[in-house]
Amino acid sequence: MPHVTIPANLPPGVPGLMQYRPETGRPLSSLAEVLLRSANTLTAADRELIAAHVSALNECRFCTHTHTEVSAQQHPDGRALIDKVMADPDSAPITPKLKALLAIATAVQHSGRDVTATQVTTARDHGATDTEIHDAVLIAAAFCMFNRYCDGLAAMTPPDPAAYIPMAKQIIKNGYSTCAG
Amino acid sequence: MPHVTIPANLPPGVPGLMQYRPETGRPLSSLAEVLLRSANTLTAADRELIAAHVSALNECRFCTHTHTEVSAQQHPDGRALIDKVMADPDSAPITPKLKALLAIATAVQHSGRDVTATQVTTARDHGATDTEIHDAVLIAAAFCMFNRYCDGLAAMTPPDPAAYIPMAKQIIKNGYSTCAG
Repeated sequence: MPHVTIPANLPPGVPGLMQYRPETGRPLSSLAEVLLRSANTLTAADRELIAAHVSALNECRFCTHTHTEVSAQQHPDGRALIDKVMADPDSAPITPKLKALLAIATAVQHSGRDVTATQVTTARDHGATDTEIHDAVLIAAAFCMFNRYCDGLAAMTPPDPAAYIPMAKQIIKNGYSTCAG
Repeated sequence: MPHVTIPANLPPGVPGLMQYRPETGRPLSSLAEVLLRSANTLTAADRELIAAHVSALNECRFCTHTHTEVSAQQHPDGRALIDKVMADPDSAPITPKLKALLAIATAVQHSGRDVTATQVTTARDHGATDTEIHDAVLIAAAFCMFNRYCDGLAAMTPPDPAAYIPMAKQIIKNGYSTCAG
């Protein structure tokens, strides 16, 4: 049961919290929209994968299922590849650049202070731009917020992974800005 | 040295990062403005104190100094009280409600999953409303993002605490929305 009274007609997880408190929901949904969906040299699928990876490290069921599914539905190699990355990014068949950005995200999840100059140099050597490094750090940091927001208020989260399939379709179709209602 | 090239004319810490990437800076600064400064039954000084407390737990120098100073400048009992809370919230002369909200923030800093129903009931028994509990959780979660954003990119942060006094005055005068430039 959530720690605060969320009206029963609101959606589960973070979107329900955004609609519960639209004053904060609006900047939160705008942040997700810019970080994960706006024009970027990183694909939306790759950015969603960074979000899903960090959410899994934070053991946030709602965000892990949501962003794994949103990534899988947008990735040309689909669910099978995303599952491999979620199981072990280092051995998954993804680019060295994405591996390096995921390694930075792993560090950020523990502490911003854990990101090393060597990790950043590795990402840059594999072709990452400053903006891509910036965005990878901020996506990882933002999901350290969204995960804590969701679980810190014990928001309702569907246990069945299949429930996230239509929610992901809606996000891909309508974007995050509509999540705040 | 920051992990990405921040132009030398930009301010230190998070505001510099917001101006480096204004597309994300705008929703980030709006979030800070709503959470810490907009109309609320929690005073701005108390909300800034939650932000400072979480930033100290995350060992983020820039955010700890900034929000300690912004809280102290706005609190009727000033710096002496804020320093006592930062040293040990449990023994500081603050209301049981604020102590309970700081305890929730401490849990959130470690993991959203660490917030217990007992902690929330204690806050409610001491007069905290649902909105205040929501906002305490989101402030704590948001600073788990801002701290990681700042340190994950190794943003320049002045070592001298005195440098934060005029920055805090500017924030109190102009708000966070202007931080994104």
